[in-house]
Amino acid sequence: MSGEAALSRVRIVLVGTNHPGNIGAAARAIKTMGLSRLSLVSPRRFPDVEADARASGATDVLAAAGVHGSLGEALAGTRLAIAVTARPRDLALPMLDAAQAGELAATEASLGEVALVFGNETFGLSNDEIVLCHRYARIDANPEYSSLNLAAAVQVLAYEVRKAAIAAPPREYQPLDAGTHEDVEMLIARLERALVAKGHLDPSDPKRLTERLRTLFGRARLSRTEVDLLHGVIGALEK
Amino acid sequence: MSGEAALSRVRIVLVGTNHPGNIGAAARAIKTMGLSRLSLVSPRRFPDVEADARASGATDVLAAAGVHGSLGEALAGTRLAIAVTARPRDLALPMLDAAQAGELAATEASLGEVALVFGNETFGLSNDEIVLCHRYARIDANPEYSSLNLAAAVQVLAYEVRKAAIAAPPREYQPLDAGTHEDVEMLIARLERALVAKGHLDPSDPKRLTERLRTLFGRARLSRTEVDLLHGVIGALEK
Repeated sequence: MSGEAALSRVRIVLVGTNHPGNIGAAARAIKTMGLSRLSLVSPRRFPDVEADARASGATDVLAAAGVHGSLGEALAGTRLAIAVTARPRDLALPMLDAAQAGELAATEASLGEVALVFGNETFGLSNDEIVLCHRYARIDANPEYSSLNLAAAVQVLAYEVRKAAIAAPPREYQPLDAGTHEDVEMLIARLERALVAKGHLDPSDPKRLTERLRTLFGRARLSRTEVDLLHGVIGALEK
Repeated sequence: MSGEAALSRVRIVLVGTNHPGNIGAAARAIKTMGLSRLSLVSPRRFPDVEADARASGATDVLAAAGVHGSLGEALAGTRLAIAVTARPRDLALPMLDAAQAGELAATEASLGEVALVFGNETFGLSNDEIVLCHRYARIDANPEYSSLNLAAAVQVLAYEVRKAAIAAPPREYQPLDAGTHEDVEMLIARLERALVAKGHLDPSDPKRLTERLRTLFGRARLSRTEVDLLHGVIGALEK
């Protein structure tokens, strides 16, 4: 199963949300990470213009959102539910960090439906709600101020789910027109000659400075254009 | 240097922010992850009641924020600056993903001042601004909708910085009053006897079912209370 298909099986469930703006911002967060399914349990106000405004380009997620009367109903069909809570709790359930929750959700989504469950802005999830879930997850936070905005918490979890399912590999810098070994060696040789001519380099022991320049140019991965540019600079300085 | 001390050396720089609400939400995101330093370059409206409202309990971060006329001024004293952009760009700089940016920022913060730089909500950072930085970072996102809210992007990066600097290890579930090996074996033996009595188990070959029960109880890590509870259940069912 592709990563995209796995993402389509992860639903975000918001329980008892007070502020419609947070529902909209959560929809936006979900969509940016390639998720699409939002379930709302007894939202205080929904639909609402404030939700639409904060959703920005993700109003399609709001339009498709399910509205349910209970968490049990919102979890129908899921094989795994992870409750997200702000604090560690004294629960007989394993606690995951956000990255582990993302990995577990992505892995299980290849097998079936998965839910990530978020509580009310002020009170979070009740214990009765959490025990409908199989695991609980906590975003590690400042112990003196651990109150993430609801949509911000959704963003972090959705980000970790995406990272586990699909993240594109980071891209090393690769010059399109990379200078060849010879290009760079010619540049260094020329610079060496110029520095010797200026008395800046002891011709009997040029090695150390040369080595440093070679390291610097190697690390930077000079393009052919940059090699030409540096030739120009050296030429200008030599005059 | 402790992780907390490293976090205190990472500044979040917001360039040309349009909406004061986003500045407030970014302050909240920063504080939840244990960061404290916010620098604003030419914000459109600041200070502002909307920023205060969205900051929730993080108005101290807003009160301490520096306001600057240029990005160069905001970067004074930094040894490393990472530009955060929404799209890969054709830049002669290495691109990091969010986790790599967090790791690099946390590592370098043990050596000196570090900045993470975020652009305007609509236009992002200009190339002139990005080239004042040493690396650029991109949060992997849905290619069809990659527009994270500004504060949501700040939240993800701050989360990755914290994770690299300080994240608390996740906690395996550990029953306080774990049932001992003998507790659980006695429970299984009793259940076995009960099942044999009910004709549910072939007394000449009870192994397979017993093995499964043992696996299940082992995985669940039964507490003594739960062992007692199950004894009660078996006793009730036996009747």
